[in-house]
Amino acid sequence: MSVSHDQAASHTVSYPTLVNLLEGIFLRHGTRPEVATVLANNCAGAERDGAHSHGVFRIPGYVSTLKSGWVNGQAVPVVEDVASGFVRVDAQNGFAQPALAAGRALLVEKARSAGIAVMAIRNSHHFAALWPDVEPFAYEGLVALSVVNSMTCVVPHGADRPLFGTNPIAFAAPRADDEPIVFDLATSAIAHGDVQIAARKGERLPPGMGVDSLGQPTTDPKAILEGGALLPFGGHKGSALSMMVELLAAALTGGNFSFEFDWSNHPGAKTPWTGQLLIVIDPSKAAGQNFAQRSQELVRQMHAVGLHRLPGDRRHRERRKAESAGIVLDDETLVQLRSLAEG
Amino acid sequence: MSVSHDQAASHTVSYPTLVNLLEGIFLRHGTRPEVATVLANNCAGAERDGAHSHGVFRIPGYVSTLKSGWVNGQAVPVVEDVASGFVRVDAQNGFAQPALAAGRALLVEKARSAGIAVMAIRNSHHFAALWPDVEPFAYEGLVALSVVNSMTCVVPHGADRPLFGTNPIAFAAPRADDEPIVFDLATSAIAHGDVQIAARKGERLPPGMGVDSLGQPTTDPKAILEGGALLPFGGHKGSALSMMVELLAAALTGGNFSFEFDWSNHPGAKTPWTGQLLIVIDPSKAAGQNFAQRSQELVRQMHAVGLHRLPGDRRHRERRKAESAGIVLDDETLVQLRSLAEG
Repeated sequence: MSVSHDQAASHTVSYPTLVNLLEGIFLRHGTRPEVATVLANNCAGAERDGAHSHGVFRIPGYVSTLKSGWVNGQAVPVVEDVASGFVRVDAQNGFAQPALAAGRALLVEKARSAGIAVMAIRNSHHFAALWPDVEPFAYEGLVALSVVNSMTCVVPHGADRPLFGTNPIAFAAPRADDEPIVFDLATSAIAHGDVQIAARKGERLPPGMGVDSLGQPTTDPKAILEGGALLPFGGHKGSALSMMVELLAAALTGGNFSFEFDWSNHPGAKTPWTGQLLIVIDPSKAAGQNFAQRSQELVRQMHAVGLHRLPGDRRHRERRKAESAGIVLDDETLVQLRSLAEG
Repeated sequence: MSVSHDQAASHTVSYPTLVNLLEGIFLRHGTRPEVATVLANNCAGAERDGAHSHGVFRIPGYVSTLKSGWVNGQAVPVVEDVASGFVRVDAQNGFAQPALAAGRALLVEKARSAGIAVMAIRNSHHFAALWPDVEPFAYEGLVALSVVNSMTCVVPHGADRPLFGTNPIAFAAPRADDEPIVFDLATSAIAHGDVQIAARKGERLPPGMGVDSLGQPTTDPKAILEGGALLPFGGHKGSALSMMVELLAAALTGGNFSFEFDWSNHPGAKTPWTGQLLIVIDPSKAAGQNFAQRSQELVRQMHAVGLHRLPGDRRHRERRKAESAGIVLDDETLVQLRSLAEG
């Protein structure tokens, strides 16, 4: 860990150092060691990849949630082998990522054998980015799709009041001789974390992102956070996709819809108590040329029509940068993290 | 069949009558009887449901394509049982709907047994709406998702020139005591058929739908059709989803990407020669309450926040209307269809 010269108030830390620091915070606030390891790697990975809205920015939220008793940091997920292509996981009111980790090997085995498999996680809390859940499958040569619902903060297109969560969709696919193709998109016009960051920085949002507490369009992130709501991306189409996410992540898993949980007795609770669905496909079962060669061909043609940046490119670039130069954290953040690990 | 009184130039026909007329057209232009039946029901169903851009409006395109020799109306799809959750179908350069029909029973059997199953159709031509492919699964209590790629006409977000097809995503889910939840959305800002209809009517489009042959924004549907292109819906997010459709419908099936086929030697060819993917999930494998009860609960809550029209509602209303009062066709259209059935 070293103070960088050009920016006296920032530090660079290595990825293992950051993981270690975050593990300490999770352990200190009551998670099992396995849960601490999974969440610390997830959060440090987002920070390393420049996905700041899901990086260490989330740590105070994790801590206040754990302190509130809303989520069970000790939960041991229960994995059920339901059918040749269907895995169910009850996260037991714990985090979604350890639930995925607990059933992941079975899911991969089923996908390779059946050609496709689904994992339905319920009774789970997802407070992170979704791409870290799908990207590793692509490194194993598999195609993965995941959806997770969250908490009421999005007004369905044509409705008056919020109902849906930000309900992201993430996708990952292998690519020959290169990083996988990965995207993770909120079906809201903007991710909730980005609204929080804009509010903290005192910035305005572009129009079309949200409404205030009276349902009127606003560009003020604070007005959205304080009684307002987000809009879906892309009008009725994004809204339809958000509805689909509710059905897949909640109705199909046995989890809560985004509007169903009540955390009012748990002040400090920040994590939505819902469900998550993952679909994994083995492209080696497909006809024709090798899938990874085909996806590489698609990317080549995307570049040929003038598309210079693909989804995921920035993250992979930031990752390589961090791997050689370390992860930059400002002084205030580092002090805060250290105090959370100790106090 | 009767001339309606209030509108002298229009006729009402029953669904079976329209199917019969369209079957005659397909048979007359060289399809097998099974193919004629599948396509006639598909097209008449779209017309009956008020989905005019995929109704009888499409018939001249089917006819000119069949005449051009681009698609094989006699093709017999080859179904392969690849794994416990994976069905492959080679449409043999025929239409996609008969290929789906040929493997459908196996797909349903696998979905019920494995909990999830995928059908990968390649070497196929899809010229219809996508919702008729998924809706029947929901009536059988299954959840279905399908994607199909088409032909280069959409500029990826951030690119200069078109590459993707209109690449729709369709979804269907059962709902207790009511019609299923069904949507079908082009990942382009507007469906190609709707641009054609606007051009024929001489109407302008809303801004943000497309560009002209120089890549400049335009609201003129003719400028889009004559060397211009469409934009994806919802900016970079819709564009990412369109890319995903290329990967799932082409790379994962062994079919062509939207930019790969060359029909220049087949004047009159209109049908994209690509692939289609269907994913079917059996919600009875999920934990918790009955899925159809849960999806009904979601709809109830959507109504409670002021959403009065759900995706699919209009189609189901039009269907009921047509079932009692018949399907209205204008005189010119009926004359044209009859002449195609005879000549």
